[in-house]
Amino acid sequence: MQKYVLCIEGKDARGLIYHVTGVLYRNRCNIIDQDEYVTPDDYFYMRTEFESTRKIDHESLLTEFRNALSHTDVKLRFSAKKKKDVVLCVTKEHHCLAELLTRFSFNELEANVVAVVSNYDILEPFVQKFNIPFHTVSHEGLTREKHEEAVMEVIDMYKPDLLVLAKYMRILSPEFVDHYQHKIINIHHSFLPAFIGANPYRQAYERGVKIIGATAHFVNNELDQGPIIAQDVTFVDHKFLASDMSRVGKDVEKMVLIKGLKLVLADRVFIHDNRTIIL
Amino acid sequence: MQKYVLCIEGKDARGLIYHVTGVLYRNRCNIIDQDEYVTPDDYFYMRTEFESTRKIDHESLLTEFRNALSHTDVKLRFSAKKKKDVVLCVTKEHHCLAELLTRFSFNELEANVVAVVSNYDILEPFVQKFNIPFHTVSHEGLTREKHEEAVMEVIDMYKPDLLVLAKYMRILSPEFVDHYQHKIINIHHSFLPAFIGANPYRQAYERGVKIIGATAHFVNNELDQGPIIAQDVTFVDHKFLASDMSRVGKDVEKMVLIKGLKLVLADRVFIHDNRTIIL
Amino acid sequence: MQKYVLCIEGKDARGLIYHVTGVLYRNRCNIIDQDEYVTPDDYFYMRTEFESTRKIDHESLLTEFRNALSHTDVKLRFSAKKKKDVVLCVTKEHHCLAELLTRFSFNELEANVVAVVSNYDILEPFVQKFNIPFHTVSHEGLTREKHEEAVMEVIDMYKPDLLVLAKYMRILSPEFVDHYQHKIINIHHSFLPAFIGANPYRQAYERGVKIIGATAHFVNNELDQGPIIAQDVTFVDHKFLASDMSRVGKDVEKMVLIKGLKLVLADRVFIHDNRTIIL
Amino acid sequence: MQKYVLCIEGKDARGLIYHVTGVLYRNRCNIIDQDEYVTPDDYFYMRTEFESTRKIDHESLLTEFRNALSHTDVKLRFSAKKKKDVVLCVTKEHHCLAELLTRFSFNELEANVVAVVSNYDILEPFVQKFNIPFHTVSHEGLTREKHEEAVMEVIDMYKPDLLVLAKYMRILSPEFVDHYQHKIINIHHSFLPAFIGANPYRQAYERGVKIIGATAHFVNNELDQGPIIAQDVTFVDHKFLASDMSRVGKDVEKMVLIKGLKLVLADRVFIHDNRTIIL
Repeated sequence: MQKYVLCIEGKDARGLIYHVTGVLYRNRCNIIDQDEYVTPDDYFYMRTEFESTRKIDHESLLTEFRNALSHTDVKLRFSAKKKKDVVLCVTKEHHCLAELLTRFSFNELEANVVAVVSNYDILEPFVQKFNIPFHTVSHEGLTREKHEEAVMEVIDMYKPDLLVLAKYMRILSPEFVDHYQHKIINIHHSFLPAFIGANPYRQAYERGVKIIGATAHFVNNELDQGPIIAQDVTFVDHKFLASDMSRVGKDVEKMVLIKGLKLVLADRVFIHDNRTIIL
Repeated sequence: MQKYVLCIEGKDARGLIYHVTGVLYRNRCNIIDQDEYVTPDDYFYMRTEFESTRKIDHESLLTEFRNALSHTDVKLRFSAKKKKDVVLCVTKEHHCLAELLTRFSFNELEANVVAVVSNYDILEPFVQKFNIPFHTVSHEGLTREKHEEAVMEVIDMYKPDLLVLAKYMRILSPEFVDHYQHKIINIHHSFLPAFIGANPYRQAYERGVKIIGATAHFVNNELDQGPIIAQDVTFVDHKFLASDMSRVGKDVEKMVLIKGLKLVLADRVFIHDNRTIIL
Repeated sequence: MQKYVLCIEGKDARGLIYHVTGVLYRNRCNIIDQDEYVTPDDYFYMRTEFESTRKIDHESLLTEFRNALSHTDVKLRFSAKKKKDVVLCVTKEHHCLAELLTRFSFNELEANVVAVVSNYDILEPFVQKFNIPFHTVSHEGLTREKHEEAVMEVIDMYKPDLLVLAKYMRILSPEFVDHYQHKIINIHHSFLPAFIGANPYRQAYERGVKIIGATAHFVNNELDQGPIIAQDVTFVDHKFLASDMSRVGKDVEKMVLIKGLKLVLADRVFIHDNRTIIL
Repeated sequence: MQKYVLCIEGKDARGLIYHVTGVLYRNRCNIIDQDEYVTPDDYFYMRTEFESTRKIDHESLLTEFRNALSHTDVKLRFSAKKKKDVVLCVTKEHHCLAELLTRFSFNELEANVVAVVSNYDILEPFVQKFNIPFHTVSHEGLTREKHEEAVMEVIDMYKPDLLVLAKYMRILSPEFVDHYQHKIINIHHSFLPAFIGANPYRQAYERGVKIIGATAHFVNNELDQGPIIAQDVTFVDHKFLASDMSRVGKDVEKMVLIKGLKLVLADRVFIHDNRTIIL
C-alpha cells in the first residue's frame, strides 16, 4: 500500500489534531505514525504518516485538509512517500562519502545519490566503483563567486531535493545557501557550538576535552550556526593527539550524518527559529 | 491550572484519536502532551495530558470519553495529575534509597515516600534523617510466607500507589506479587536478560563483559522476567573485579531506577504482553 | 598492608621506568597499579601505586627515589595513601552537595568532608542531617574582595587538601584562585568549551543542541578555562525547554563531579599545559 | 623509525617491569607505549611498544629479553610492527564487509584483506569493486565436515594471520576452531551473554529490552562463549520491531567489529581464562 506523509506547521489553535484526524477518519485512512509538538511560543508542528485501503485522489484529499484547517493559520505539505534525489559534495576525505555510497548501493537510504561534486578529483576512483557521476569543479584560479557558479551549474543539472555536504571543505556564500534554502545538510566535525570554524580537532586537543563529537545541521548564512539535526559524541583521553581525535571523530561524523540525513529523508525534521523539531 | 492525564488502551479502531480529541475540542481543553502507539498486533495505546481553562467536571467528562469510545473495545483511565504514595523496600544497600530520599526531600519526584520497609535495621539511621517511618521486619526465624505476611501488613497500612524495591534482596512469592499487581518496580543490577538471578556482577566478571548495566522493571511471577521500563549501561575493562563492577554499577542502578520511577509516576508506562510502551 | 603512591613528572629521559622500578625491586615492593605517559613535547608522567611486605621508612625510600632520578629533570611526590580533607562550597542547588554528603557518610570517598561553606543558608538544614559544620558567609553588602576574604578565613580554619565548588555560583578572583592553586575543583553545567559563562542551559536551548553535558575542571584564572578532568553528556530533544535541560543536566553534573573528584583524590590527575593527564 | 612490540605474559614475579625496561635502557630503545596488568590470581601481562635509534638485531635482543626473564615463568612474543593478513568470512549481509573493505581500501587498518570467503555468492559483485579475491564455497549438498574442509582449503591458501567472521552465519566445528586457534574473531549481533544463539534481535524484541548491542569476541568451542574483545550498545524503544532493532543493530555491529579488530591487529589483546586483557 502507498504511504503518505502530511506535515503541518503554524500558529497553534484548539482542535488541530481533531480536524486533521477527522479528514483521515472520513477517508478511511489508517494512521501509521503520528507525532505533534507545540512550542512554548505556541507554534504547532505535526507529522502524520498514513495509508489508505482505497486509492487516494491526491488533489481532493489536499482540498479536504485545507478546508478542515481553513480557519487556522497553518501550512501543510502533503505527498506520497518516495525517494529523494541527493547530490553529494565532497573534498578529499572519504569516510562520509563511502558510508553514503555503500548504504545507497545496498538500498538502505530513502534516496537516490544522483551525483557527486568535488573541488578535487581524489575521490573519483572510489565513486566510479558505484557507477555514479563524479564532477570535479576545481576552485583553482577561480574567485569564490565563479567557483560557486560552476558548482551550482553542475548541481542544478540534477535538480536534487537535497544537497549533502559530506566533508565539503569550502565556506559557502549567502547566494549559494539561498539558492538551496533548507536543502543543504552539513556534517561538522565537532560537537557544536564548541569549536566553530577550522581545525576543530586541533582546537579540541588544545582545550584538553575528554569528549569529542560531530553535528549534522542545516546550512544557513552564519558559519556552523544552522539548525542542528543530530549530534553524537565519543570519549577520548590524554593519549589522543589531534590526529587521533580526527581519526575516531570520523566514525562519529559519518554515523551522525547518516542519522540526520535519514530524518530529513523521512520528512521528520521541522525548523523553528534556529532549532529543529523532530517528529 | 490543574492538569489531567487520560490513558487509553485496547483494540485499535479507526478514528480513536479523532474521537478523543473531539471530546477535548468541544470541552475547550488544551492538549499539552500527546503520544500514541499501535502495536504490530493492533493494540492501540494513547496518553493525553491536557488542561482546561474552565473547571472540569470529572464525572461528566469521563462519561463523554466513554460515549465517544463506546463503539470500540478500549479501556480508559482518567485522573487529575497528582503525587503518588510510594513505599520503599530495602535490605542493606543504601545507594538507591539515598537517591530516592534526597530527591523526595527536595521535591524532585511526583511522589510522597510514605514509609521504608526493610528486613534489616541497618539503614534506619539514614532514613531517620529524613523523618520518614522505617519498619524493620526481620525474616529471621520466619518462613517466607510468614515474613511476607508481616511485610504486607506494614505496607498495607500506607495503602501505597506504588512499591519500589530499592535493592530489596528477597525473592517474592506469587502471592505477594499478585497482592500488588503492576504496582511493584524493581531495580535489577544487570543489563537484563543477561545475568538473571544472584550475584550478577560476579557473573559479569566471570564472563569478561566490557559493559555492565542495570534494569528497572515491573515485578511479575518469573524471577527478573517482568516488563522492562528502563535500562542503562556503563563501560568497564579488564581492571574491574566483580567488586569494582558492583561499585560503578550502583551508580547506574540508582539513575535507572529514578528514570523508570519517574516514567511510572507520570503515567507514561503501559504494559503490552511482557513489554512496556512508554508514551 | 599500607599502600603508597609515587607520582613523577618532568622532562622525559631514557630509563625513567627502569630506574624507578629498580628502587621498588630492591626494596621488595609490589607494584599494584602503574601507568605512564609521555607527551608529544617530551614530558614524562608516571603514577605508581605499590605496597611493601616490610615496614617502609618513608624518608629513606624517598632518598633512594631521588638518587635514582638525580641525573634527570623530574619532580616526584611520594606519600602513603590516605583520605584527603575537603571543603565544599555551595550556593543554593543541592544536587551535587547531596551526592557528595551521601557518599561521604557511607564512606564511599577517599575524603573527609570537613565543612560546607555557602553564600546562602538555604542548604544548612540538609547539611545538618550529616553533622557537618555549615558556614554561611553572605555576600550581601560586601565587595567581592571582602567576601572572598571572609570565605577564605573560614576555609583556612580547616586547612583542606581540596576545595570542591559544588555549584558555587560566584566568580572567583585571581587572588582566591592563587590562594588554593591546583586545589579547586569546579563542576560546570555545560560540555565545555560550549556555553561558557552564565546560563549555559539557556544558551543550549537557544542553540538547539541535541546533547547537553557537564565538565569537572580545575579552576584557574580564566573563567571556565581550567584543565578539564572529566566530562559526560546526555541526550535531549526538542521537547526539552531550558528548565528541562537544567533538570536532567543536574544528574550529569553530579556524576561527573564525583568522577573527577575520585580521580583527584586518588592522585591520578596531572596537569600539563592546560590539559589533564589521568593515570 | 621501525617500531617493535613486545608482549609478555606469565606468572607474576617481582621486578618484571624492571628487568624488561633494563634491556631496553641498555639497548637505547625508547618506550612509546607501555601498559601492564596483574590479575587477581597473579598473572602478569605487559605490552611494550618501542623504537630504537639504532638498527636492532632481532635475535640478539630477543636473547637479552629471554636472559633477563630466565628466572621467571613468563612467555614473550617480540616482533616488528607490521600489517597482518586477514581473510574475511561472510554470508549474505554486507554491512560489516563493506566497512572492512572501505577501511582497507583507504589504508585505515593495519591489515591486508587477502581474500573473502562466503557460502553464498551474493556479495561477490561488491567485493569485486575492491579487486579482492572472492571465493564462494556453497554448503549446499555438503555435510558440515565436508563444507568446512573446503572452506579451510581456500583459507589456507592465503596463510592468514587472522580470520574475521564478518557475519558468517555458520556454526563452526571444534576442528575448524582448533585449526585457527585464537585467530578467529566473530561479531555477534547481541550484547553477550544476552541472547546467545539464533535470532538475537527477535529475542531482544520478545524480551522488550530498551538497549541492544553487539559483541566482538574470539571464537572458541562453545557457541558465543569465547573471550569478549569489545562491546557497544544503542538505545531502542517500544517502536522498534525486531527488524528495526536489526537495522540499527547493524551500525553497532560494524563499529564494534572494527574496534575489536584494531585492538587485535595492534597486539593489544591478551586472553586470561575466558576474559581479555587489553593493554
